[in-house]
Amino acid sequence: MARLVLKFGGTSVANLDRIRASALHVKREVEAGHDVAVVVSAMSGKTNELVGWCREASPLHDAREYDAVVASGEQVTAGLMAIVLQSMGITARSWQGWQVPILTSDQHGSARVLGIDGAELIRRFDERKEVAVIAGFQGIHAESGRITTLGRGGSDTSAVVIAAALKADRCDIYTDVDGVYTTDPRVVAKARRMDRVAFEEMLEMASLGAKVLQVRSVEAAMVHRIKVFVRSSFDDPAAPASGTLICAEEDIMEQQIVTGIAFSRDEAQITLRGVSDHPGVAAAIFGPLADAAINVDMIIQVVSDDTTTTDMTFTVPTADYERARLIIEGARAAIGFGSLQGANDVVKVSAIGIGMRSHAGVAARAFKALADKGINIRAITTSEIKFSVLIDAAYTELAVRTLHTLYGLDRA
Amino acid sequence: MARLVLKFGGTSVANLDRIRASALHVKREVEAGHDVAVVVSAMSGKTNELVGWCREASPLHDAREYDAVVASGEQVTAGLMAIVLQSMGITARSWQGWQVPILTSDQHGSARVLGIDGAELIRRFDERKEVAVIAGFQGIHAESGRITTLGRGGSDTSAVVIAAALKADRCDIYTDVDGVYTTDPRVVAKARRMDRVAFEEMLEMASLGAKVLQVRSVEAAMVHRIKVFVRSSFDDPAAPASGTLICAEEDIMEQQIVTGIAFSRDEAQITLRGVSDHPGVAAAIFGPLADAAINVDMIIQVVSDDTTTTDMTFTVPTADYERARLIIEGARAAIGFGSLQGANDVVKVSAIGIGMRSHAGVAARAFKALADKGINIRAITTSEIKFSVLIDAAYTELAVRTLHTLYGLDRA
Repeated sequence: MARLVLKFGGTSVANLDRIRASALHVKREVEAGHDVAVVVSAMSGKTNELVGWCREASPLHDAREYDAVVASGEQVTAGLMAIVLQSMGITARSWQGWQVPILTSDQHGSARVLGIDGAELIRRFDERKEVAVIAGFQGIHAESGRITTLGRGGSDTSAVVIAAALKADRCDIYTDVDGVYTTDPRVVAKARRMDRVAFEEMLEMASLGAKVLQVRSVEAAMVHRIKVFVRSSFDDPAAPASGTLICAEEDIMEQQIVTGIAFSRDEAQITLRGVSDHPGVAAAIFGPLADAAINVDMIIQVVSDDTTTTDMTFTVPTADYERARLIIEGARAAIGFGSLQGANDVVKVSAIGIGMRSHAGVAARAFKALADKGINIRAITTSEIKFSVLIDAAYTELAVRTLHTLYGLDRA
Repeated sequence: MARLVLKFGGTSVANLDRIRASALHVKREVEAGHDVAVVVSAMSGKTNELVGWCREASPLHDAREYDAVVASGEQVTAGLMAIVLQSMGITARSWQGWQVPILTSDQHGSARVLGIDGAELIRRFDERKEVAVIAGFQGIHAESGRITTLGRGGSDTSAVVIAAALKADRCDIYTDVDGVYTTDPRVVAKARRMDRVAFEEMLEMASLGAKVLQVRSVEAAMVHRIKVFVRSSFDDPAAPASGTLICAEEDIMEQQIVTGIAFSRDEAQITLRGVSDHPGVAAAIFGPLADAAINVDMIIQVVSDDTTTTDMTFTVPTADYERARLIIEGARAAIGFGSLQGANDVVKVSAIGIGMRSHAGVAARAFKALADKGINIRAITTSEIKFSVLIDAAYTELAVRTLHTLYGLDRA
């Protein structure tokens, strides 16, 4: 017997038919003798509708009221899931964030979970095998007694931190895909579903563009060492297919050097030519961007021919590209540069793998392979377990496929 | 300066435009210097959608889960109304039932309000003139910590009991009509809006078919002596028209004998002929109906020519007609009767007026007027301040218009 948290996303609870299909997965685990907590998202589309109403009510709405409004989506699904489970003969009840309680900070709209009291839920597991159906995405700020939400995609985070509080053996994230792939299968037909992936790798993949899990939920899983199993609610509940287990490195028998290729189109490049090379110039560039809450990613500085100036290249999110250009132009006097060049038809392609730590020359092989295909690399960043290259967007598919094959990730 | 509770029904908060229009009424009262609590229903149609989902989830759903699901409708409106008020420069915040708290019994789906702690709301009136926007229809059962609802139309009741807890000077019920009419204006073109109506009269009108207010809310208003003002949210907020004040009898200067004519099509008649006239026969008939939770209304017993038997006529709600017939047929041996006759094309027409208490012959005038029009009366019941006649449904409009004119209610 194990203790499991099962989380169902919006497409898995989109309507009563989908809720029933998802409930059959819960039933299977209950009948196998496990203690089960279920975490649900809002029906797909509902959160957008509620957010839309808040915006319509006022563009500058009170985040506390926004939270009260949007948290209602998960409340509805939790109640409906409990009703459906009961109709299948399973003892179940719904819990809203404030009922558990799931205590959070008061950063309304993006609250952090501070603590969860799982004692009553565990008592009910022990006493009557009652399934706890918990509304995801929401909590309560203890001092004010007001509802909070964890931000978009927060239900994944809810599930992981609830699993930690309940000391669950595993957290199953049911979604509309059957696991985490070596890369986006829409780009690379030979992409493979991974059986296992290490927390650190998943964190990089989520950060670098893989959309299957929220970054925060992977962080929480890593911190609390909660095994997360990504799987499909569209499987036959009687004979579910497998998924991808996100787990500690030591739980993975044979670690590949590179486990996945991620890419993000949400990148724009800005290059400053002829930047006068004096102390404090980096602060003069990046200070105003930070003040404007623009997240700068890759930064490359190259000494130019003229030794008194350098070239500086960095990337920002596509949505912030125009704003960033204006800010930099506005700070031209303070910075001192020759010309500003920019491009937002660029893409960041990344290779991730814990095995890189112990293998030299992994990135170098990629640079050569990309060069052989005539792909120009605009910028490079590396960390212990990943490297990223910034290239022209037109080469996205070619680059991803090239690296996928290069590192032996193609399905046989 | 007064303290007011303003309640807005589903059509008054049907969408953001309607919420904004209703908010302007709140703004007017705030700017007049009043302390204001707002009670909101769900957007029109939302509660039906949520109820529909619960039924789809399971025809026999857990009433506790039903309450958690359907209470979300008012939660959404409360948050949106608070946002809109804030956008108009008014200090406001939303309150859910459990936040106030509004403590109720644990009769989920039709809970009774046990107590409301209005101290914090009053403190905020005094301290910062904050408008409290309260989700109607819902409360919390203290022991279980679970959300309860007060039953359909419960937001009217919420508003009245909140007004009592806050010691409000008046409870304004904003709806899509501009008050209470002497009868249904769709039936009688000359129906008049009443300026004032006594609690007792309104209670009879609501019970006998007038739909503008829930019976329970009128009961609560009568018990707590809360003046209720029924008015339209579709008025110009800058120059609102009048409405109908429901108040104590002593607050009405000149009481009419009959103040209103109500009618209900939700009636079916069952007549048992040749019932053996022995002790306990009434119990044999009405016991099984009570056991089946069928609400018997009018009961008339007539001794037949044959002195050993009687005829027994009674009415039941239309929805229970077939079931009631089957139950009576099933109890034929225990009752002992000759034949069962029934009709569900009947209507109950009632005249209500506190003045009847001090005037004799009020009903007798009606019987004559109806007879003059050739309308056959199938059954009669009377109480201190009303009488009702059961007639063929085909004569509904004729009977209502006849009585409306007879008692001088027609608009000049």
